[in-house]
Amino acid sequence: MSCVLCHEPGGLLVAQTPLYRVVRVVDDNFPAFYRLIWQAHVAEFSDLDAAQRAECMEAVTAIERVLREALQPTKINLATLGNVVPHLHWHVIARFDWDSHFPNPIWGEEKRDVVGGAEARLALPLSDLDQRVRAALGA
Amino acid sequence: MSCVLCHEPGGLLVAQTPLYRVVRVVDDNFPAFYRLIWQAHVAEFSDLDAAQRAECMEAVTAIERVLREALQPTKINLATLGNVVPHLHWHVIARFDWDSHFPNPIWGEEKRDVVGGAEARLALPLSDLDQRVRAALGA
Repeated sequence: MSCVLCHEPGGLLVAQTPLYRVVRVVDDNFPAFYRLIWQAHVAEFSDLDAAQRAECMEAVTAIERVLREALQPTKINLATLGNVVPHLHWHVIARFDWDSHFPNPIWGEEKRDVVGGAEARLALPLSDLDQRVRAALGA
Repeated sequence: MSCVLCHEPGGLLVAQTPLYRVVRVVDDNFPAFYRLIWQAHVAEFSDLDAAQRAECMEAVTAIERVLREALQPTKINLATLGNVVPHLHWHVIARFDWDSHFPNPIWGEEKRDVVGGAEARLALPLSDLDQRVRAALGA
């Protein structure tokens, strides 16, 4: 078995516990994009037991709250798809009405160019955002 | 305020409780597509309290399990986006390696035609699937 998320971080490592790690995804269009990756190789959310599901979603919620408070995004998008890499991971993405795809999903059609780049429009540097995410997770 | 999910079911009603309802989305490409809609108008998952979040995700998990057991899909996709309708709702979608968009997200580029239609390839009729979802939710 060669699962990329069993062998690579899957993004810039921000925090981790024995059960999960949180990375920031490097995406020019969506700079405030975190991914919670379950450390063990399981494919589906329902492969977790109830306590693991709760811990997973409370961590997702903590990331969501940091993004909301720090960036005041138009919307938060949460998703676990895994069609290409069937190793449980949750996308947590701050969306803005000015972003390249809004209101389309990030996987949909691009709607506009963002002059100057998306990262420059965020209310704080990504390193500060990472620090806030790390602090919120206590990990 | 005119929120469509405050005024319309949002799909074919399958089950409901005081906190949420579950509907089946009518989509020719993705026939095994359910949506859990929070009854109250809240925008984000983190607007729920911890007990509500747990109840919400346990219901999402119950739907996921029915889809896995009944249909043996290639993958389950879960998502809450709400960019167009910012009223909390979760998509729970059974994906198959033969479906119109796989492995792309359902919001991405179409990959193929499904001869005969997707619904005909499911292991059981949608009315039976609805019944299993309803039973699993006890709602």
